[in-house]
Amino acid sequence: MKRNFLYTELSNNIATLIKNGVLKEGDRLPSVRMLCTEHGISMNTAKRVFLELEAQSLIESKPQSGYFVSRLPYKKLPLAQVSSPSLINGNQEPEELIHKIYANMGNTDLTFFSIGAPADQLLPLAKLNKEIILATRSLSHSGTAYEPLQGNEKLRRMIATRSLTWGGNFDENDLVTTAGGMNALSFCMMALSKPGDTIAMESPCYSGILQLARSLGLKVIELPTHPITGIEIDALKKVVSKINLCLLVPNFNTPLGSCMPDEHKKEVVALLAKHGVPLIEDDVYGDLYFGAQRPKCCKSFDAGGTVLWCSSISKTLAPGYRVGWIAPGKYKEQILKLKLVHAISSTTITQEAVANFLKTGRYENHLRKLRQTLQYNYQQYIDTIAEYFPEGTKTSRPQGGLALWVEFSKEINTTILFERALKQNISISPGRMFTLQNQFENCMRLSLGLPWSETLKQKLKLLGRLAGS
Amino acid sequence: MKRNFLYTELSNNIATLIKNGVLKEGDRLPSVRMLCTEHGISMNTAKRVFLELEAQSLIESKPQSGYFVSRLPYKKLPLAQVSSPSLINGNQEPEELIHKIYANMGNTDLTFFSIGAPADQLLPLAKLNKEIILATRSLSHSGTAYEPLQGNEKLRRMIATRSLTWGGNFDENDLVTTAGGMNALSFCMMALSKPGDTIAMESPCYSGILQLARSLGLKVIELPTHPITGIEIDALKKVVSKINLCLLVPNFNTPLGSCMPDEHKKEVVALLAKHGVPLIEDDVYGDLYFGAQRPKCCKSFDAGGTVLWCSSISKTLAPGYRVGWIAPGKYKEQILKLKLVHAISSTTITQEAVANFLKTGRYENHLRKLRQTLQYNYQQYIDTIAEYFPEGTKTSRPQGGLALWVEFSKEINTTILFERALKQNISISPGRMFTLQNQFENCMRLSLGLPWSETLKQKLKLLGRLAGS
Repeated sequence: MKRNFLYTELSNNIATLIKNGVLKEGDRLPSVRMLCTEHGISMNTAKRVFLELEAQSLIESKPQSGYFVSRLPYKKLPLAQVSSPSLINGNQEPEELIHKIYANMGNTDLTFFSIGAPADQLLPLAKLNKEIILATRSLSHSGTAYEPLQGNEKLRRMIATRSLTWGGNFDENDLVTTAGGMNALSFCMMALSKPGDTIAMESPCYSGILQLARSLGLKVIELPTHPITGIEIDALKKVVSKINLCLLVPNFNTPLGSCMPDEHKKEVVALLAKHGVPLIEDDVYGDLYFGAQRPKCCKSFDAGGTVLWCSSISKTLAPGYRVGWIAPGKYKEQILKLKLVHAISSTTITQEAVANFLKTGRYENHLRKLRQTLQYNYQQYIDTIAEYFPEGTKTSRPQGGLALWVEFSKEINTTILFERALKQNISISPGRMFTLQNQFENCMRLSLGLPWSETLKQKLKLLGRLAGS
Repeated sequence: MKRNFLYTELSNNIATLIKNGVLKEGDRLPSVRMLCTEHGISMNTAKRVFLELEAQSLIESKPQSGYFVSRLPYKKLPLAQVSSPSLINGNQEPEELIHKIYANMGNTDLTFFSIGAPADQLLPLAKLNKEIILATRSLSHSGTAYEPLQGNEKLRRMIATRSLTWGGNFDENDLVTTAGGMNALSFCMMALSKPGDTIAMESPCYSGILQLARSLGLKVIELPTHPITGIEIDALKKVVSKINLCLLVPNFNTPLGSCMPDEHKKEVVALLAKHGVPLIEDDVYGDLYFGAQRPKCCKSFDAGGTVLWCSSISKTLAPGYRVGWIAPGKYKEQILKLKLVHAISSTTITQEAVANFLKTGRYENHLRKLRQTLQYNYQQYIDTIAEYFPEGTKTSRPQGGLALWVEFSKEINTTILFERALKQNISISPGRMFTLQNQFENCMRLSLGLPWSETLKQKLKLLGRLAGS
C-alpha cells in the first residue's frame, strides 16, 4: 500500500546496496550535487534521499565531508520482528510485573536500564536551578499564585515558535499547558472517550498509556507495528470503523524507537479524519532525532483540527518539573474544562523557569548535545550487544529517542531475566510490560539515557551473559 | 435527633443568654474553674462549653484574661437561612456564569471579593522563595527527577505529625501527595465512582467540586446545610441508601464557613460506614479556625478506613505550588494507581520546599498570623455590612476559613449584581455558582482573604449601595 515516490525508490536502492555489502561501513556516498546529475533529480529530492537513509541509521553525515555508510553491525544484529498482536480487545494487564519494577525505583544501587528518562548527568542542572531562582524573583507573586487556566503565556509562545520547524504553525492560543506529558494524555483521553469505547495504539506500547486507557474503562486494540516505520496502516484500516479513538507516538516511540515516514503520517491522519476518529499524538520524543532534521508530526498534516498534539520536557530536560502541553485542535474547550476541574492550574514556578530556559536558546544547545550523546550510546549498545549477547538476538533501529528494543530467541523469557538481573543490581524493562496480550516475553527495552562508561559496558555484558545462561 | 450532652446543654443556655441580650457585648464570662464549681462539672466539660461557644463566634478568648462575649452585631445581621435544596439529581450547571467570572481573573484593576485563596500580601513570600532555592540545592538531582510515586517522604511525615493535633494518628505511609487539593478530590472521586453513580454534598458547595462530579458523569444530591453546623443529618439519612459516595467539607467550607460539631462528624461517619458509602473529606480550610482549637475531622472518627481525608496548602500558603495530599484509608492502592497513570508524580521542588517550611515551624507562626488577620477581616466585613448593606441582609457566621456568605432579601439578584459590580471594578461570587439547582439567586460569597484597608471598606460600601439600588 505504500506509495513509491521517486525519492523512496532511490533510497531503497541505496539501502539495498548497503545491506548487501556492496557499499561498506565507512564508505563515502556521492554528494547531493552528484546524485542530482546522475539521476536527473532536483536538489530537494536528492536531499530527501539522504534524510531517509539517515533516518534509517544506514548512513551518517559528517560536517564538511558528506555522507558515509554508518558502522552499525547490521549483519550481526538482525532487525527485530514486526509485532503481530491480535486485533482484539486485550485485557491481560501485567500489573504485578509493573508493580515489581516500580517497587525498586528508589534503590540507588541499581543500574537502571529500565529508566524512561535521561539520567541527570545528561541534564543542564546548574542552568535550570538558575532559572528557578530567577522565576521566584520575576513572577508577580513569587509563583505562589495560581497560573491562568490555559497556562504560562510565555511558555506557550515559545512552544508555538518551536513548532514552526515541523509545520505546527501554532500561536500561543492554540496551546494548553499540563502537569507533564502523562497528564496531557490523560486529559485528552478523558475528553474524547467514555468507558466501553475502543482505542487503537502501537504494539509494543508504553505501559503507562495502556494502564491509563484501562483505568478509564477503554477497550484497547494493539496494532502491528514495524520497528522502523511504525504502525501497519493496513491493520488500522481493518479496525478503523470499530474504534472511537487512536493514540500514536509517531516519532521515536518507546520501546521501539520507530518513526513513521511523512507519507504514513499523512495517510493515517486522513484515514482517521475520514472516519471521525480523533488522534492523540504523543510527541514527547520528537526533539530527540538522530538524523539531520526534526521529523514532522501527524499534527503537521491535520487540516480539520482532529489531532491533539501532546508533548513535554520530561524526556529532554526535567521530569520532576511536571511541564507538559497539548495543542488540542478543535477540542480546546473540553480540555480547558477538564484542566479546570481536575487540576485548576499547573505549578507556576517550574512553567516560568522552563519558558525562560527555552527563550534563551539554551534548550537548543542542550538538545544538540543530548542527541549526540544518545546516538553515541546507541552505537555503543549495539556494538556491545553484537559482541556479548546470545546468538539470535535482534534489535530495533531507533532513529531517535531513549529506547532500544531487544528481541531474544524464543526460549529466553525476559520476565525471568528481570528477576535474575535484579539480583545482580541490574534493572530492565521486560517486553511483557508493553502489551495487554501474551506477547514479547522474549523481548526487553533498554534505556539509552544513561551515561556510557566502562562500568555500564560491563553491566550490559553481564546482562547478555545472564540472558544466554 | 441531636444528643443532649451535658456540655451542649450548658453552652446552649449561655448562648441563649447572649442572644437575648442578658449577657452583653464585651461582658466577661465566668472562668473555667468557676463554671466547674457552679455546675459540679469536670474541667474538661467546662472547657468544651467555652470551645463550643467560641466555635459559634459568640464568645472570644483574650490571653491571660478569660472569655468575653464577642462584639458581633447579631441583632443587626440575622443568620442566613438553612438551605433547602430538593433531594434530587441537580443538573442546572451555571456554566456561563462561572465562565464569566474566570474570564476576568487576570484583570489587575479589579477588587477580588470573589477570590478563593488568601491575597499574596498575607503570605510569607520571602521565606517561601528561600525554601525554593534551598530545595534546588538539597535535592539529589536538583529536583529535576521524578518524585517517588507516593510523594515526598519528608512532606508526608510532617503532615502526619501535624495530624496528631486533631486525632489523625497517621504515619507517612498513610499519605499520598497530589498536585493540589482539587487533584486530590479528583483522584478520590475517580477511584470511588463510575458514571451514573450518585454523590451527596453540602449545599451551597464550591463550584469546582460540583463541576468535577458532573464532569465524571455523577448524579449530584445537594443536602440541606445549616450555616453554623453543616449538613442536616436527617436529610442524609433519607438519601443514604441511594448514594454511592459522599463528599463533605466539614470544617469552614466555602461558601458558608460552617463547622460540623464533633458529634455530627461522628454520627455521619458511622451512618455512611453502615451503608458502605465512602466519605471524601475536604479539609483544606481546617487550619484556618478562628476559635481556640483546631477542629477535629470526620477522619478522626474513621475506624474502618472508609474516610478519604484530603487537604492542601493552597488556602494557607501557595496555591501556585500545587501541593496537596490524601489520607486514603483502605483505598490507598486505588489512589496510587490513579496517580501513576494520570500524573506519574507531583512537582518535586515545590513539595520539598513546603516540607522544609513545615519542618522549621514557620508554618505554625504563619498560620497564627493568618488566622488573626482573617478573623479581624471578618469583624470588619460584618461591621461594614451591618452599616451599609440593604435592610434584610443576613450573613453566615464563619467559624474559620476564607468565606462569608451574604443573603439578601429575595428581590435582590446577585447574578445581576455581579454584572453591575464588575462595571465598578468589583468582582463577587454570585450564589448561583454554588449549586446545580435554581437557588441562592439572592446570595453571594465574599472572600475574607483580602488585606483590610480603607479602600477595601469603600469598595464593600459601594457594593452594598449597588445591591440596594
